[in-house]
Amino acid sequence: MDETAPRPARSVFPWLVGASQVVGLAAVVLTGVWMGHFQGGFAWDGSAREFNLHPLCMVLGLVFLQGDAILVYRVFRNEAKRNVKMLHGIIHLLALIISIIGFVAVFDSHRAAKIPDMYSLHSWCGMATLVLFCIQWVMGLMFFLFPVASSWLRASYLPIHGFCGLMLLVMAIGSSLLGITEKLLFSIMSTYSLFTPEGVLANVLGLLLLLFGVLLCYLTTREEYRRPPNPEEESLSIHFKTLTEGGSPTTP
Amino acid sequence: MDETAPRPARSVFPWLVGASQVVGLAAVVLTGVWMGHFQGGFAWDGSAREFNLHPLCMVLGLVFLQGDAILVYRVFRNEAKRNVKMLHGIIHLLALIISIIGFVAVFDSHRAAKIPDMYSLHSWCGMATLVLFCIQWVMGLMFFLFPVASSWLRASYLPIHGFCGLMLLVMAIGSSLLGITEKLLFSIMSTYSLFTPEGVLANVLGLLLLLFGVLLCYLTTREEYRRPPNPEEESLSIHFKTLTEGGSPTTP
Repeated sequence: MDETAPRPARSVFPWLVGASQVVGLAAVVLTGVWMGHFQGGFAWDGSAREFNLHPLCMVLGLVFLQGDAILVYRVFRNEAKRNVKMLHGIIHLLALIISIIGFVAVFDSHRAAKIPDMYSLHSWCGMATLVLFCIQWVMGLMFFLFPVASSWLRASYLPIHGFCGLMLLVMAIGSSLLGITEKLLFSIMSTYSLFTPEGVLANVLGLLLLLFGVLLCYLTTREEYRRPPNPEEESLSIHFKTLTEGGSPTTP
Repeated sequence: MDETAPRPARSVFPWLVGASQVVGLAAVVLTGVWMGHFQGGFAWDGSAREFNLHPLCMVLGLVFLQGDAILVYRVFRNEAKRNVKMLHGIIHLLALIISIIGFVAVFDSHRAAKIPDMYSLHSWCGMATLVLFCIQWVMGLMFFLFPVASSWLRASYLPIHGFCGLMLLVMAIGSSLLGITEKLLFSIMSTYSLFTPEGVLANVLGLLLLLFGVLLCYLTTREEYRRPPNPEEESLSIHFKTLTEGGSPTTP
């Protein structure tokens, strides 16, 4: 691998991963501070404080954990593939559970306050992201953890699975930014333009989420950070196809 | 190239390009209808009608034209590289001019109506996108159209240029979605939840922009849609580096 991956690009890898974790965790903390300090804290009682769990769960689950579930394939690219796959699936399951709690929180608090659902662009994008995320998770489970598909189908689906995963992360970040804008205009419209601490904090949160997305996209798409092909790990059938049809096995 | 590019993926290429153009143009038309019909039309007189030029210019310039400028490398991947480069630069220049008109329109109309600038997440993301777009355009001009950098620097910068270009398109689409949400909450907050035609139209516009982004990302990142390497077109120095250092020349 050394001849295809220049040393300078490799040497920044740990710094970029570190930066992504600092930025991602900072985004989760800022969401907690925004909802906990400026918006009155958290509860599970159908009030506005139950709503406050929604942004926190979405940023933690659908952005930070989804991003890290993708990143494990780069960070642990030299570990046993089966273990990395398991970790990828488990973090995604955690992301899914936390996201569903976040969705229940918003619908529950809306129902209690008689606020209509699913009319805004944020809600349309967010719902599309969660539904597609569920489909992606089930497809991943069927294709790669409990392989019910043929190895040819799995090899064909792999690049689509990777592309869709990154698109879903970008959609989750986009939906979060829309949610930040909605929340600010619903709660502090009259003072937002005065650069109040709450408005500035939420804007900075938006920029951090954007930066997290850019770092994740970069780390995931750079060729030299991909998992090196390891013939011993892969199934004989895929290799048989490679040898007979001339295709090259790809790594996620 | 035939053995690395399966036929089914190739055969959907024209359909995906066609779909991207239909979706992109539909987004431009919907923006025009929204601003022209629901928001009172266009003018250049410092009024709200001057503001209406802002969304139209941004969707046309920074989303549709920027997307198409990227796409020319895939659509014309078998044409002379010099011509495609020129087309890429010219469409980007057009995108830049239209985007700057859109920026002037919003600042001008804000000044006339004494509306504060640059406090919202939309304005922060939009400004970051335009500034980075300008830097990217100047860098592209220096590196590839009037090459002042060495061929080694050009080859190193090429994947970064491509990555940043796609990120800028995603940022432009994200900023547009934030702008849609802002405009709807500022103008029809009380009726938005009633699924009024203006709200639904703007939401559909948001989904079209999202779909345009997904199609462009897919078309740009699929290996088999890349420009095939053509040794005759590329400079001797890059090939000398390839032969001596073992790196593989990449195409944008």
